[in-house]
Amino acid sequence: MKDIAKQRLIELGKRLAEQIKNGQNPYFQTKVRSKSNILSDKGYLELGDKTEKREFLNIAQAKTFMQTIAVANKLKKFLDEDLHTSIRGLYYQLKYSLGEDIDENLFDEQSESNVLIEDLEAALDVKREDFNLTTDRKGVLAGPIKILDRFKGEEVIIDGTKMGRSGWMIPSDVDNDMEILELEADYVLVVEKDALWQRLNEDRFWQKNKAILITPKGQSSRGTRRLLRKLADQGLPIYVFTDCDAWGWYIYWTLKTGSINLAYLGKDFTVPEAKFIGVTMSDIDRFPFLAKLTIKAKEIDIKRAQELLEYDWINKYQDWVDELNKVISTKKKLEQDALQGERLTFVGEYINRKIENQEFLP
Amino acid sequence: MKDIAKQRLIELGKRLAEQIKNGQNPYFQTKVRSKSNILSDKGYLELGDKTEKREFLNIAQAKTFMQTIAVANKLKKFLDEDLHTSIRGLYYQLKYSLGEDIDENLFDEQSESNVLIEDLEAALDVKREDFNLTTDRKGVLAGPIKILDRFKGEEVIIDGTKMGRSGWMIPSDVDNDMEILELEADYVLVVEKDALWQRLNEDRFWQKNKAILITPKGQSSRGTRRLLRKLADQGLPIYVFTDCDAWGWYIYWTLKTGSINLAYLGKDFTVPEAKFIGVTMSDIDRFPFLAKLTIKAKEIDIKRAQELLEYDWINKYQDWVDELNKVISTKKKLEQDALQGERLTFVGEYINRKIENQEFLP
Repeated sequence: MKDIAKQRLIELGKRLAEQIKNGQNPYFQTKVRSKSNILSDKGYLELGDKTEKREFLNIAQAKTFMQTIAVANKLKKFLDEDLHTSIRGLYYQLKYSLGEDIDENLFDEQSESNVLIEDLEAALDVKREDFNLTTDRKGVLAGPIKILDRFKGEEVIIDGTKMGRSGWMIPSDVDNDMEILELEADYVLVVEKDALWQRLNEDRFWQKNKAILITPKGQSSRGTRRLLRKLADQGLPIYVFTDCDAWGWYIYWTLKTGSINLAYLGKDFTVPEAKFIGVTMSDIDRFPFLAKLTIKAKEIDIKRAQELLEYDWINKYQDWVDELNKVISTKKKLEQDALQGERLTFVGEYINRKIENQEFLP
Repeated sequence: MKDIAKQRLIELGKRLAEQIKNGQNPYFQTKVRSKSNILSDKGYLELGDKTEKREFLNIAQAKTFMQTIAVANKLKKFLDEDLHTSIRGLYYQLKYSLGEDIDENLFDEQSESNVLIEDLEAALDVKREDFNLTTDRKGVLAGPIKILDRFKGEEVIIDGTKMGRSGWMIPSDVDNDMEILELEADYVLVVEKDALWQRLNEDRFWQKNKAILITPKGQSSRGTRRLLRKLADQGLPIYVFTDCDAWGWYIYWTLKTGSINLAYLGKDFTVPEAKFIGVTMSDIDRFPFLAKLTIKAKEIDIKRAQELLEYDWINKYQDWVDELNKVISTKKKLEQDALQGERLTFVGEYINRKIENQEFLP
């Protein structure tokens, strides 16, 4: 994928040089990333067909055009050098190479440089990971999977069953120089909280149930989202296990459909096939002991539930409407940690029962 | 260490039962954890000799006394079952076992239950990890170390040189059922940011320099702090590499001396031997290209620098006084990412030069 990334950077440069040679105003096309160009009909958010021009000879765009070309130039250099850095590292390289006479605040806001990188990702249809940019890591994995990591020429085999108490830290880039060698799992279980992951890992849940056990540790990193897409592409069901609250729902829906900000990444970073395993307020009917383990919903939980009910891609599911209305009417919520109330090992029993009976929310 | 933990819980129970049998007001002793009982003369923060009583027949203490004994009872149960959970899991077990008639907010605030666990840790001189409580994980390691993880009876060998792009996720408990088998390193390098860790890992810094490369990913988790103490106990120097700003200094000093809140843990979670490798404002004299890569210090950086100058255990070092004053007078700061400005691989060169010339702050 890096070959494609490099090729597209070279083509971009050639086109611009050609335009200048022909006395044209240099420009490139990128996709419109605003809400007006976001589609959701395939079960995930993606950009539509609308494009826009970025031009050099345009007072509103001249500075960002120049910055974007400087970014593209650096990315080409990183690929040539076969070296990675973060978007912060990229910022300092630009600051250095542009010299002291350039406005010091050129890229002072991370958000400013982020936008330009997104512009290039969308314009060239390339992920930043393929431009040798590293991203923040957070997720952890254990289970029956073997991964070959050809990192900088050395081959290392990662065995997800030999991680002890720890787990494999999901890297920033799970595509380049990396492949899945073996996968003996029946499904993937995504567990919101690391504490619950540790609980299930201790019970060898992944071994007993042939599951890939992943915690994104809250909201998923890019690497975790990309890995989940790859595991879904291998035909594995993806079950998501979070709190029944604003944050848990947000984690689930971002993972499943993507988010407005990341719509330009489309399907590569989403899992529309994902199912929501729980916890849900209706779990109380299944497991009555949970009734006394609910806690008071916060204002943000109620507000978020009301917002979600307004999204077409959520309110089309009656089960989700009922679930969200339960939180709104009872003003209670339920955490995944609560499943440990009666006995610590109940967490695994709960998941097995839910999977066996296919008691999911869509 | 778990044997000791269990033994002390049993003794606590026996003493209380004895007191009740003798018609006494049940009580136990714990260490005073307020500022008045914190000592810093050994180079780290620890509690002094002052103790205080926790009594049952005391209107101000009855509820927390009862809660504490309920916590101790659960911890004993976890040790008997050989199962782990988080402090949130513990909270739900208590909520469940106490029944519906008990005030629902008994432990609703995490901070409330935290305090009781700290009380037990201090009273019994036992770490919560030895009570089978898991804690949040964050840090990552690579380098020439082999660790034997005897997790739940299965033996797994973790090889810090076979982690590819990823690294070993430092677990919550690095003491029980775990030992260092081989350690071929000359020192430990602690790198504040994961992005820089990834940069150095890509350059195989740990291999070329026989170093254990750790990122706490910001402030250290308990597991990372405990592991650093253990590595220092093996005779390895601990070098810390952070931003030159409020957050970077905070990470360094917490790691080195501990913090007021964690003073009850004393030396087990601190590394007073640690040295500060950088980045520093005086690095600009060594590497002039950094001059144009400084950024504007925030108000919090200036304020924090002024605060640090007031601490006896910091202002006794003239080098730190000079360094902090440089930030205050120039109103500039420097990030570790800036070292990548000229070329990405400079980060490793910088560290080598600093170690070679012993250019540390104490």
